[in-house]
Amino acid sequence: MEILQGACLVAQSGGPTAVINASLQGAVEKALSSSAITRVFGGRYGIQGILEGNLCDFDKENPRELALLSQTPAAALGSCRYRLEKEEDFRHILEIFQRYDIRYFFYNGGNDSMDTCNKISQYLSEQNYPCRVIGIPKTIDNDLVGTDHCPGYPSAAKYVATVCSEMYQELQVYETESVLVVEIMGRNAGWLAGSSALAKQIGCGPDLIYLPEAPFSMEQFLADIRRVHGKSGKCLAVVSEGIRDIHGRLIVESADGLDSFGHTQLGGLAQRLANAVKEKLGIKKVRGIEPSLLQRCAGHCVSERDVEEAFLAGEAAVEAALRGETNKMVGFSCERKAGKYRCSTILIPLSDVANAEKPVPREWINAEGNGVTSEFMDYAAPLIHGEPPQICDCGLPRYAHLRYIPVE
Amino acid sequence: MEILQGACLVAQSGGPTAVINASLQGAVEKALSSSAITRVFGGRYGIQGILEGNLCDFDKENPRELALLSQTPAAALGSCRYRLEKEEDFRHILEIFQRYDIRYFFYNGGNDSMDTCNKISQYLSEQNYPCRVIGIPKTIDNDLVGTDHCPGYPSAAKYVATVCSEMYQELQVYETESVLVVEIMGRNAGWLAGSSALAKQIGCGPDLIYLPEAPFSMEQFLADIRRVHGKSGKCLAVVSEGIRDIHGRLIVESADGLDSFGHTQLGGLAQRLANAVKEKLGIKKVRGIEPSLLQRCAGHCVSERDVEEAFLAGEAAVEAALRGETNKMVGFSCERKAGKYRCSTILIPLSDVANAEKPVPREWINAEGNGVTSEFMDYAAPLIHGEPPQICDCGLPRYAHLRYIPVE
Repeated sequence: MEILQGACLVAQSGGPTAVINASLQGAVEKALSSSAITRVFGGRYGIQGILEGNLCDFDKENPRELALLSQTPAAALGSCRYRLEKEEDFRHILEIFQRYDIRYFFYNGGNDSMDTCNKISQYLSEQNYPCRVIGIPKTIDNDLVGTDHCPGYPSAAKYVATVCSEMYQELQVYETESVLVVEIMGRNAGWLAGSSALAKQIGCGPDLIYLPEAPFSMEQFLADIRRVHGKSGKCLAVVSEGIRDIHGRLIVESADGLDSFGHTQLGGLAQRLANAVKEKLGIKKVRGIEPSLLQRCAGHCVSERDVEEAFLAGEAAVEAALRGETNKMVGFSCERKAGKYRCSTILIPLSDVANAEKPVPREWINAEGNGVTSEFMDYAAPLIHGEPPQICDCGLPRYAHLRYIPVE
Repeated sequence: MEILQGACLVAQSGGPTAVINASLQGAVEKALSSSAITRVFGGRYGIQGILEGNLCDFDKENPRELALLSQTPAAALGSCRYRLEKEEDFRHILEIFQRYDIRYFFYNGGNDSMDTCNKISQYLSEQNYPCRVIGIPKTIDNDLVGTDHCPGYPSAAKYVATVCSEMYQELQVYETESVLVVEIMGRNAGWLAGSSALAKQIGCGPDLIYLPEAPFSMEQFLADIRRVHGKSGKCLAVVSEGIRDIHGRLIVESADGLDSFGHTQLGGLAQRLANAVKEKLGIKKVRGIEPSLLQRCAGHCVSERDVEEAFLAGEAAVEAALRGETNKMVGFSCERKAGKYRCSTILIPLSDVANAEKPVPREWINAEGNGVTSEFMDYAAPLIHGEPPQICDCGLPRYAHLRYIPVE
């Protein structure tokens, strides 16, 4: 194996998660301990910040603060949503890589970020600039192909299932009839909304779950609510923000079935569906709940397995690059057998992952399109296991304080 | 001391909290261990359920499930919002108390519930029916008079501070400018919204906080946001749902300053303020976040001190009644000195507590009305300490499963 000497650059991209910084910690600690890697840089604000030369020096960070990254939500390096297309951007990246002798590049993100990663890898290769490029997966949407699941999803799933179990408890408080509609993130894939069903394991799951993968009908939704509510006087319904009608139009953007309210600007999907239930079914106590951004950075409610796997993915990326791999994304291969769960890292060509999306299989959603099957449960259940110990300060989680010393 | 032999009845009332069931556990376990108390009953759905004879038998519950009450959010017995006024209701309560030989009544709730408790106590006394009545405080609003603070508030405060610290982390992710407006519960008192400031202890607090106790002006709010946002490109603002204008009108109900949007039905306060910021200040990325019901039953993010004190309050109520006390509410007297915190239970006449409200002192809010002072911080900070160990099942919190065996 040829030893490639040089600096490495790690950066984060796309939406934050509760464990993306655990991957950062895994990658940085592994890189710091490697003799081939001469310096360890962080790119601030993703590829956009890198283009502005906004790099920081991980050699100058306090190891104790680095160790806190795995319990720090959001994205410690900062992130971006930037589509790399212009030729001059690529030239500029090459210049920066040359200036700092960057020979290892690790980019942590979702499908768009893997596309960026793929393009950079190809460009550097065409320019005969030796650099090993490895993607590290991350998304609460869980929609990356080629991997069993994505770091970030298990913790978001645990948070969603926990919150739904609490909403279930809340629903039981009063004798009066009531309905809650909870809106869960996931524009194109229903993995996260589906995970609310995990609360059924403790007897506190939602009655109805609607995913983007099954066409949504307002009439059916109201009939479902009427039926469940008619039995128990209560109904807990979970909807993915990405639910669509039979023509593929987002419900949140269409006025179908919501016409009589006429407000297209204000109020999220949950609130609008809650209003529809109130108005069309005449149920008085109906509430829409939108956990919104809390879903993607709830560091106080993470899956220990997710934290460990996210860390492992960061480490595996550096190890793969040191072995000579490039143009790949780290993924997971998992076994679920007789209550046992095993996860190991694999490598997937970036070109397979870039811009592709993995929806929830239609057969993992029930025939009525208002719940998930046992296959979904078997898939998702092991992912949310474990509660990591958390270092707290004044009763609040202690986050990593990085110094972000700019690279000269 | 005269020993009063007879059954006891425990019930819950008002809005749920994350620790109201810890008080239930404290009261029930203490009552079960008493020789004077012959039977231990729970009243389902507060005084409303009691009026329907809906009682359950705690002697028949599994002690292992009872032990899980302190990590079970919401209200295990069920609750109600029922104003006791009719003479026949009082007569009916006396009949039920006589039928089951109830000589001890413990009612766990907020100010309305203490009013109920007080009225029942007086009526039974007028009817020469010996029964000791003790109130147990509970409210995330923290607005009961006579007590340092109320069980339920510390955990809700910890949850709010934690969520705000996560929203702060979220705000730092992108280089682009952005504003978050977070709406916190508290119709008349700003204790809970104020607790968001506790996140400043870990460097992740909100920039601006608006409480109902200081008049809210839309112009000032927009000017505050413009100023903070102008400096850093970011702004995290917390508003209490109960903010009012100079005339005492709720902002969420008034159209002042929000007129141009014209929607009075849809969208909570946070969303409407976010829209105002977007429209009036021309900032593109503005989001309203409403944690809604999650604030009052986030069992996954409680203060250990709160759980312990809530349990203690339940125990103290039973102990006081056994000592011969009646017509009182359990309260807390606390010392905060040189970083040390000590809390002990006291008794307060129910008539002092019933229907009274304790707002945040105006001098604990800064002169500008957009933040809290160090006095507020010193008061609230010790309350959120400690993270209790949690028994989990499948990666989710395990809640108590009571059998609710009806009393014959």
